[in-house]
Amino acid sequence: MSFNPEGVTRRSFLGMVGAVAGAAAMYSAMSTMGFASQSNWRGRLNLQGAPDNTNILILGAGLAGMTAAFELRNAGYNVKVLEYRDKAGGRCWTLRGGDSYTELGGFTQHIDFAEGNYLNPGPWRIPSDHFAVLDYCKRFGVKLEPFIQVNYNAYLHDSEAFDAQPQRFKEVATDFRGHVAELLAKVVDQQGLDEAVSVEDAEKLVAALKRYGALNDNLDYITGSESSTFRGWSHPEGGGVDGKPEPSQVNSLSEILNSTLWRNLTTGDNLHMQSTIFQPVGGMDMIAKGFEEQVGELITYNAKVTRIRHEGDQVTASWISADSGSNEQTETADYCICTIPFSVLSQIDHDFSPRMSKIIDSMPYASAFKAGIEFKRRFWEEDEHIYGGISYTNLPITLISYPPYNMFSDGPGVLLAAYPWGAYAYQFNALSPEERIDKVMEYGSQIHPQYYDEFKTGASVAWHRVPWTLGCYGLWQDREADYQDATAMDGRTLMAGEHISYLPAWMEGAVLSALDAVERLHTTITEI
Amino acid sequence: MSFNPEGVTRRSFLGMVGAVAGAAAMYSAMSTMGFASQSNWRGRLNLQGAPDNTNILILGAGLAGMTAAFELRNAGYNVKVLEYRDKAGGRCWTLRGGDSYTELGGFTQHIDFAEGNYLNPGPWRIPSDHFAVLDYCKRFGVKLEPFIQVNYNAYLHDSEAFDAQPQRFKEVATDFRGHVAELLAKVVDQQGLDEAVSVEDAEKLVAALKRYGALNDNLDYITGSESSTFRGWSHPEGGGVDGKPEPSQVNSLSEILNSTLWRNLTTGDNLHMQSTIFQPVGGMDMIAKGFEEQVGELITYNAKVTRIRHEGDQVTASWISADSGSNEQTETADYCICTIPFSVLSQIDHDFSPRMSKIIDSMPYASAFKAGIEFKRRFWEEDEHIYGGISYTNLPITLISYPPYNMFSDGPGVLLAAYPWGAYAYQFNALSPEERIDKVMEYGSQIHPQYYDEFKTGASVAWHRVPWTLGCYGLWQDREADYQDATAMDGRTLMAGEHISYLPAWMEGAVLSALDAVERLHTTITEI
Repeated sequence: MSFNPEGVTRRSFLGMVGAVAGAAAMYSAMSTMGFASQSNWRGRLNLQGAPDNTNILILGAGLAGMTAAFELRNAGYNVKVLEYRDKAGGRCWTLRGGDSYTELGGFTQHIDFAEGNYLNPGPWRIPSDHFAVLDYCKRFGVKLEPFIQVNYNAYLHDSEAFDAQPQRFKEVATDFRGHVAELLAKVVDQQGLDEAVSVEDAEKLVAALKRYGALNDNLDYITGSESSTFRGWSHPEGGGVDGKPEPSQVNSLSEILNSTLWRNLTTGDNLHMQSTIFQPVGGMDMIAKGFEEQVGELITYNAKVTRIRHEGDQVTASWISADSGSNEQTETADYCICTIPFSVLSQIDHDFSPRMSKIIDSMPYASAFKAGIEFKRRFWEEDEHIYGGISYTNLPITLISYPPYNMFSDGPGVLLAAYPWGAYAYQFNALSPEERIDKVMEYGSQIHPQYYDEFKTGASVAWHRVPWTLGCYGLWQDREADYQDATAMDGRTLMAGEHISYLPAWMEGAVLSALDAVERLHTTITEI
Repeated sequence: MSFNPEGVTRRSFLGMVGAVAGAAAMYSAMSTMGFASQSNWRGRLNLQGAPDNTNILILGAGLAGMTAAFELRNAGYNVKVLEYRDKAGGRCWTLRGGDSYTELGGFTQHIDFAEGNYLNPGPWRIPSDHFAVLDYCKRFGVKLEPFIQVNYNAYLHDSEAFDAQPQRFKEVATDFRGHVAELLAKVVDQQGLDEAVSVEDAEKLVAALKRYGALNDNLDYITGSESSTFRGWSHPEGGGVDGKPEPSQVNSLSEILNSTLWRNLTTGDNLHMQSTIFQPVGGMDMIAKGFEEQVGELITYNAKVTRIRHEGDQVTASWISADSGSNEQTETADYCICTIPFSVLSQIDHDFSPRMSKIIDSMPYASAFKAGIEFKRRFWEEDEHIYGGISYTNLPITLISYPPYNMFSDGPGVLLAAYPWGAYAYQFNALSPEERIDKVMEYGSQIHPQYYDEFKTGASVAWHRVPWTLGCYGLWQDREADYQDATAMDGRTLMAGEHISYLPAWMEGAVLSALDAVERLHTTITEI
């Protein structure tokens, strides 16, 4: 058989590749042909050949800074990291019992969660296509467990609809899909879409919609066994004499449309929320600790950077003790990777170019608020059969997330009891920590009446009050216009962090930006 | 304020209940009003007051038999269990390295999986509304972990479509939903559904469909950032210079309709497959072992029941050694709970009523086949970023499920590499164990080209060849007509097992049927 690229199908081509070169080559061929998805992550770096005595200064020991430190140190560079806080990780952060946290404005919270419980104020999940973070977790022995994003038993709640009663996700999701499928199936069945759907496809579409929407043989989405198989029964399928189920009553499309419940039906279908999705066992900062074990010796903690200067072929950062404000010290290097959030960097005395300065100054940081409330028992599991997952509400708390760890255990559990952003976050930002918890309780108890009986303690983080970020993540005002300039070497400094990425707020964005900066820096240095 | 049931809304009624009686009463009221779902499980049994010296004989030490034994022993009855096999659990069964299994026809498989790997030939997941099973797990200390049903990175595959190349679930699911939403949104937008959807609702429906289907501002579902946010990008969102993503190409609705890929889009939306869903840590038979720890001392193993007779107010089972066929022994009791599958019971000499005999004889058992293949490494994770979940195919293997345990580990992993039922299962049943694995490899390698390079060992169970069930689960020929008679006391025997339930094939069905039988038996005895 002669090779004829015109006459060969992709399938037979792959067959030939497989026969000749084995599975690895075939998989590689599949990837090239666009069948297998590839990450922006280009695989593990293995930089080598750093010139002797080349000093790199890294500002910030968050994930971006520690990624850069790890890779550059491995390449043979002399690396030093200045970190404002007394610990590494930045927004990859976990609050546990015994921790204290002082926010801008002076409020200090002493966290009182029971052993094993925690709140992740920042990132809280890792999608399975965040290859760089997953790979570092594997290398550093950070154990992961499934995060539960979608729980069909969790609630959708609207204080102005359905008598303000929370509805199970499975009910609303099934009803909306069912009504949509019914409406379209009947139009197609009556030849109403001849222009858009061929006669050939129309019959298949009706069959597909019937299954998709759990329609009956008349293409109705109505109360019955078809719909109950997905939305649940009023009397469930059981065993013995009483085993026969009774169908549950479907909601009308109008009821759903005249609520906000439809707004979160596809949240879990978003690329970054899709199952399978993970969290570290024991809290998000286990990742920070994994990095810190590798590069902790390179980090100077409690170092508040006060000035950045480029002179000749050197870059110098001045810093004081973050605790005492004691005498200024300086650190000079050949190059710098700056991971300080622009919200903070804009307040530091620096000599970046006017163009870079303008970008730094033009980036507001997003508002977000998270509250964790510990309850005496896991009533959401015991009373309501909700194991992990997220309930959504139109109330300012926005959502309630149920801990996907230690499920089925007795004793106290911590809910992520509020996670608003934007305007709702500002409402909480303006309150004292105590008032915030009061408000979270007031709202949350409208969904879970057990709240007040079972309350134990609470903690919260208003991201605009976090002294070392002054917000949650960077918001580009004009990313099209500014992004490439922000990634360019400015003097002898490259920027890195989640803000220098198209994955803002995600750890993967921070790590990928650092890997990119490190590779480009190494190329610049070794090509000189 | 006077109480006026006619004028009070459900919400204000609940408010009053909450104010007066606290959260627990309020939750109870919510349940009564249909807001909270209730299981057929009526809570833990606490039977008391068994008359002295009342003997109960239980046939079969699967989950139904052991549930009955546990509850009746706790109530004070003298309980004996006869079990055909040398272990308890029945279909709640796990095959591990070192196990041997001999099937009908004489083939013996010596399982060679590495330490920690396993195949669950029978049940393999526990929905979060299977309250009875979950409660016994909690009581018996059986640890559970999330099972991954839906993985958006897993594949949908059709050997006759898309050039036989597997497509990611996220791509097909997004495309189908998008096209459906586009078609309906445009009809509604052009006032094509005035009769079915009010003018008021139409605008809301279009807005909801725009979000639901990831449509653009023109209500198109096309290649672009809206669709890629759900189906994935051709060049992913990243960090640094190269961070900007490129949209991926959507599939046309026609391409999807002219394949079988749409058939499994809502499988994970089925009530019994919905997230959150669990499996025991270490294999399904950890549940059997949990029960066995409680009631193992009541079980006589290797006891093959040969005859069941009702005489006077006694019931007697005769049995021989399942190994040696040695001299017949008998066990006599006041009552019997028989959990022997009807497929086997129909072959035993018994004196059940003609009506019950007819039901026993008329129940065929479903065909199902499972194969587990161990590979040298977890290529599905390492090469294809598939962590747990299920790929579906039109090939006879039907599906491939990726182990949701020990994810990210090095070394060998076991795929559930085939799980057909019906006609496809018969094809495998007819083959020798070796030939079955050959076939599974041939089919599976069309989805994962790494199969042959990475193959290590395989094991399979063809349920029609399992000597102690002769099939997978009971299929009612006319459940409407026969079910209640099958649950009725026949002589001094009650039937139990998954077949005596509306949850066939599920462990919950077996347990609920046993709980129902036990309660009714106790009532019968104590009311005499």
